[in-house]
Amino acid sequence: MIKVGIVGGTGYTGVELLRLLAQHPQVELVAVTSRAETGTAVADMFPSLRGRVGLRFSDPASSPLDTCDVVFFATPNGVAMHQARALLEAGVRVIDLAADFRIKDVPLWEKWYGMAHGCPELVAQAVYGLPEVNREQIRGARLVANPGCFPTATQLGFLPLVEAGCVDPEHLIADAKSGVSGAGRKAEMPYLFSEASDNFKAYGVPGHRHLPEIRQGLEIAAGRTVGLTFVPHLTPMIRGIHATLYARITREEDFQSLFEQRYASEAFVDVLPSGSHPETRSVRAANICRIAVHRPQGGDTLVVLSVIDNLVKGAAGQAMQNMNIMFGIDECAGLLQIPVLP
Amino acid sequence: MIKVGIVGGTGYTGVELLRLLAQHPQVELVAVTSRAETGTAVADMFPSLRGRVGLRFSDPASSPLDTCDVVFFATPNGVAMHQARALLEAGVRVIDLAADFRIKDVPLWEKWYGMAHGCPELVAQAVYGLPEVNREQIRGARLVANPGCFPTATQLGFLPLVEAGCVDPEHLIADAKSGVSGAGRKAEMPYLFSEASDNFKAYGVPGHRHLPEIRQGLEIAAGRTVGLTFVPHLTPMIRGIHATLYARITREEDFQSLFEQRYASEAFVDVLPSGSHPETRSVRAANICRIAVHRPQGGDTLVVLSVIDNLVKGAAGQAMQNMNIMFGIDECAGLLQIPVLP
Amino acid sequence: MIKVGIVGGTGYTGVELLRLLAQHPQVELVAVTSRAETGTAVADMFPSLRGRVGLRFSDPASSPLDTCDVVFFATPNGVAMHQARALLEAGVRVIDLAADFRIKDVPLWEKWYGMAHGCPELVAQAVYGLPEVNREQIRGARLVANPGCFPTATQLGFLPLVEAGCVDPEHLIADAKSGVSGAGRKAEMPYLFSEASDNFKAYGVPGHRHLPEIRQGLEIAAGRTVGLTFVPHLTPMIRGIHATLYARITREEDFQSLFEQRYASEAFVDVLPSGSHPETRSVRAANICRIAVHRPQGGDTLVVLSVIDNLVKGAAGQAMQNMNIMFGIDECAGLLQIPVLP
Amino acid sequence: MIKVGIVGGTGYTGVELLRLLAQHPQVELVAVTSRAETGTAVADMFPSLRGRVGLRFSDPASSPLDTCDVVFFATPNGVAMHQARALLEAGVRVIDLAADFRIKDVPLWEKWYGMAHGCPELVAQAVYGLPEVNREQIRGARLVANPGCFPTATQLGFLPLVEAGCVDPEHLIADAKSGVSGAGRKAEMPYLFSEASDNFKAYGVPGHRHLPEIRQGLEIAAGRTVGLTFVPHLTPMIRGIHATLYARITREEDFQSLFEQRYASEAFVDVLPSGSHPETRSVRAANICRIAVHRPQGGDTLVVLSVIDNLVKGAAGQAMQNMNIMFGIDECAGLLQIPVLP
Repeated sequence: MIKVGIVGGTGYTGVELLRLLAQHPQVELVAVTSRAETGTAVADMFPSLRGRVGLRFSDPASSPLDTCDVVFFATPNGVAMHQARALLEAGVRVIDLAADFRIKDVPLWEKWYGMAHGCPELVAQAVYGLPEVNREQIRGARLVANPGCFPTATQLGFLPLVEAGCVDPEHLIADAKSGVSGAGRKAEMPYLFSEASDNFKAYGVPGHRHLPEIRQGLEIAAGRTVGLTFVPHLTPMIRGIHATLYARITREEDFQSLFEQRYASEAFVDVLPSGSHPETRSVRAANICRIAVHRPQGGDTLVVLSVIDNLVKGAAGQAMQNMNIMFGIDECAGLLQIPVLP
Repeated sequence: MIKVGIVGGTGYTGVELLRLLAQHPQVELVAVTSRAETGTAVADMFPSLRGRVGLRFSDPASSPLDTCDVVFFATPNGVAMHQARALLEAGVRVIDLAADFRIKDVPLWEKWYGMAHGCPELVAQAVYGLPEVNREQIRGARLVANPGCFPTATQLGFLPLVEAGCVDPEHLIADAKSGVSGAGRKAEMPYLFSEASDNFKAYGVPGHRHLPEIRQGLEIAAGRTVGLTFVPHLTPMIRGIHATLYARITREEDFQSLFEQRYASEAFVDVLPSGSHPETRSVRAANICRIAVHRPQGGDTLVVLSVIDNLVKGAAGQAMQNMNIMFGIDECAGLLQIPVLP
Repeated sequence: MIKVGIVGGTGYTGVELLRLLAQHPQVELVAVTSRAETGTAVADMFPSLRGRVGLRFSDPASSPLDTCDVVFFATPNGVAMHQARALLEAGVRVIDLAADFRIKDVPLWEKWYGMAHGCPELVAQAVYGLPEVNREQIRGARLVANPGCFPTATQLGFLPLVEAGCVDPEHLIADAKSGVSGAGRKAEMPYLFSEASDNFKAYGVPGHRHLPEIRQGLEIAAGRTVGLTFVPHLTPMIRGIHATLYARITREEDFQSLFEQRYASEAFVDVLPSGSHPETRSVRAANICRIAVHRPQGGDTLVVLSVIDNLVKGAAGQAMQNMNIMFGIDECAGLLQIPVLP
Repeated sequence: MIKVGIVGGTGYTGVELLRLLAQHPQVELVAVTSRAETGTAVADMFPSLRGRVGLRFSDPASSPLDTCDVVFFATPNGVAMHQARALLEAGVRVIDLAADFRIKDVPLWEKWYGMAHGCPELVAQAVYGLPEVNREQIRGARLVANPGCFPTATQLGFLPLVEAGCVDPEHLIADAKSGVSGAGRKAEMPYLFSEASDNFKAYGVPGHRHLPEIRQGLEIAAGRTVGLTFVPHLTPMIRGIHATLYARITREEDFQSLFEQRYASEAFVDVLPSGSHPETRSVRAANICRIAVHRPQGGDTLVVLSVIDNLVKGAAGQAMQNMNIMFGIDECAGLLQIPVLP
């Protein structure tokens, strides 16, 4: 059994980790910490876990995190960077679901996240946890930076094209739509039901933190600089990301085949038949990315549609997938829930 | 392995059965029939099942249903009553998710369902599949009438009280709210998004087909006639039933304890601590009924809150629970999914 | 022109008042106050008002409220009771949309609202602003206590019955469902989209502040004590209240006719034909209460369905209706918007 | 008074026309036709209109449409083209809310709409009813082709740029999101609440009928051919369109100022301050298009955000605006409802 700890289990990625880990056949949940909720039974806060998670939230200071095999950080940005080193030194592997270790360029990270990095020396050794790109490195990683939700959907949709070098890398466009749970479990006005329901809006058009993360991944894949316009939107649903990606063709290819071959051996990326329109609900509550490729009117603009559940393949599911890889067990263990539809 | 067939797999109870059966460790799916969709791959109609259900819908006439151990009918009312006999005679056990065999009083059934019963002689031997009431009979049943969604939530909420005889059985009130999937996967105007969203209404107040089913169950439990006012409502969510039940106290009891004891050994009924307000999402996509008991202001009116997922404990999950019982395997097999929250 | 001020214009009742007052042909908006937003253009906070409301939020301390003919308090409970007296003494009429002056029994108010009343001597002279009951008193009122949203829908539904004395007044049941805007524009966890969407729950079953308000109104109408079980629920829609009311018949009546006659001359109460099921969207964004009366199965329990828009007939619209009455102008002025459907 | 008839008043554009026309001070509703609902009171089908619209649906054959000053067709595509000529010959002006007269190139229309055009000779004289482009022609028009919803939002967002010739006209991208009411009041599976709620998807990516309509408008404005990739999406809300538009800059401009000047005298186009993110709810139920212009990261890609209510500025409201222009009355008459927020 893999002994697992979670730091910060009261948010949506936290409760989703708990849902998945509690159903994982080779995991033993050792501790779930929350400073604010110390002593509260986890199942009192999340009744969906009644009878399934017996733990209480514990104080991070006195929790036996250093006895774990792996600790997940489901904390706001800026927390893991202060606590990861001690755990790593104690021999505990760390998976950070926040952004602390995602960007290799520390000054760039500091500019976008508005804080000084508390542990820049660990950034270099952190492995960016997108298994479809970095599986081998993840296997040996001590510290995994779990990708953001928009970056997961967007990179998986663009990767075959930029790796193949068949589209203009200077003018990629990602028009992405997220369900409201992407904003986290925070009591903030714009995410109230009465504000976000029956409503649609873009946000962060001048610049969103996921832009440099996506660009970094695409630049590594392309082996050159990449120009990306990234426009996120808030859509009135709980879970789901739909990325609509636009790229100008620079070299003819069988694009459908390109995608199918790229992901032929990936358990969690599903390339749909030509002409398909993936729906976010087709991946609801499951660790899957579904992708469709279109070339409207036979023109020179490709349209890629990529959907994930932001809390699963976009966060907790992918984190557990990384854990499976790190511990050398079946990559699919505990991750084969069928999507919930309707 | 239990060899399973599904008649009518294109509705919401059908796809939910497929989701659950495909994850059941002891089930082999043999056939899913649909006259209208014969030849279509199941996963083409329901992309959530891609890679998990390889079957195509088959013509009921040529499907190997009689080689199955059990056949589920996920059909409209009035279908199973014409096909069940032949299957039973072939030694196949039958679980009907529709209403054909739920009401013992055939003329009463015919009045509420507006058709002649095609197989009245099977009604008597059919077992009403509410495991919390009829577990022993289900074990030996050849033909199980799976309860309706409102009847499940309502009976589980009222049963401890009417069995104990501590409330006025003449004036029970069930104010029930259902998500829209309860109406089935039918293209009808009132269930359009633009009609049902951001809207709330009662329906069927003069009389709803679930009324005689609930009353029958409560009368058996009470050992006497029962008076029930049942008002269903449509609420803008996909899944979930919330039954708010009102009963006049006629004898003092420790009501919290009464409920806890009644369901102490039930895996799928969860009595919440006193003062709780169960939410439908706490059972979303899971085979659980959560119940809370209130006595507002210490008055003589009890209020019981009972929630289920109408497609799981209210339909496909309960049907699979009945199958588990009928085949003598672990009653929880394949039914331990943790609810999806948020 | 009636010179109008609003204290606390940043909540949902505030912005709804602004929407309605800005379209009222005889109103001049003089000031909208908000301590937190002083200096902000109202239309910057609520872009729906761009080009229609030119005011900025002003500091309550320096706002010319005492030059107004009438001031609306769209503030949390406990604010108007400290500020109303000074305005009244300056000759300004006051309409409080909060609860400060609704309950005549001050100790009872203090118990339910958990604070000492800051101005008990004004409670007696305040008129409860339900025009269908108190129209004459409202006409001459200096201080109007605008009813709560649940109390409006519930009282209008029960009034014909308790006034006629034809139902058991000891055991009334009000099962009420509210859209999320009823919770106000407050950043609190339970009202997040990801918590409240695709979910249904009861709340406050042990006791809700609207219980004593409803009971007070019904007791005045009945001329005797009344027993009421009141269970509010949160339903995933923005606007709307649906009250499902249950009463035991004690004397036969033509109940349909009783309701039609009671509200024959009311512009804002619409009794639907027998057998109807009013939907909340049929009153969305409009100052109307629609009511239907049922007697299921010809039994002895009456079911009354009553719907309003909680922000209009349940708050801002009714407040403006009261203003119209107080100032002797057409009661319907500015209130004839047709409901928005779909 | 302008005497008005509506052909096909049972859809969403029909009921929205009724809502707006019934509140128009200079309109007399003469007839609303529906073959299927002949004899039904309009307010029985749409309870929101109780007390406000007294008409019954009448048989088109016997309705006094030829006595009207103007007739609106709120019918499916392919109806108006068969009935417009007779009305025009009787001196009645016609506004078609469907697509019959929108595309000047009749063979192109026939290709996209899959039917032979019933009245090609009227296409040339029809005026495309986008007032911000064709106000003068609309003034004298006998037959107005009211624009589609996506075309309205998209053209208003692109027009200042293509008119100024400062972006690459060969590679425009319109990523558009629509509420479900855009699909009309038709009982079709994909628009069921249980299918469309809590879900997001693109549709018609290979080709959507609004593509040639948008392209036609932009080509007239640009005075040259235009290349457009148009991807519509279905988003789980009732009303609203959000168009996110991408264009490559070819000549530097003060883009904010360009938009402000273009729409300076337009009552129903609101250019937001730089940096804004318009929300669909800020125009809910109102005849307004709100637009914001962004240049993310100072790059060479402009992003324009354009929102409308698809049933108002995208259909019925714009149709009534056209009527006001045609009859020489105040263009804003009956169209100054403030958006409903929340």
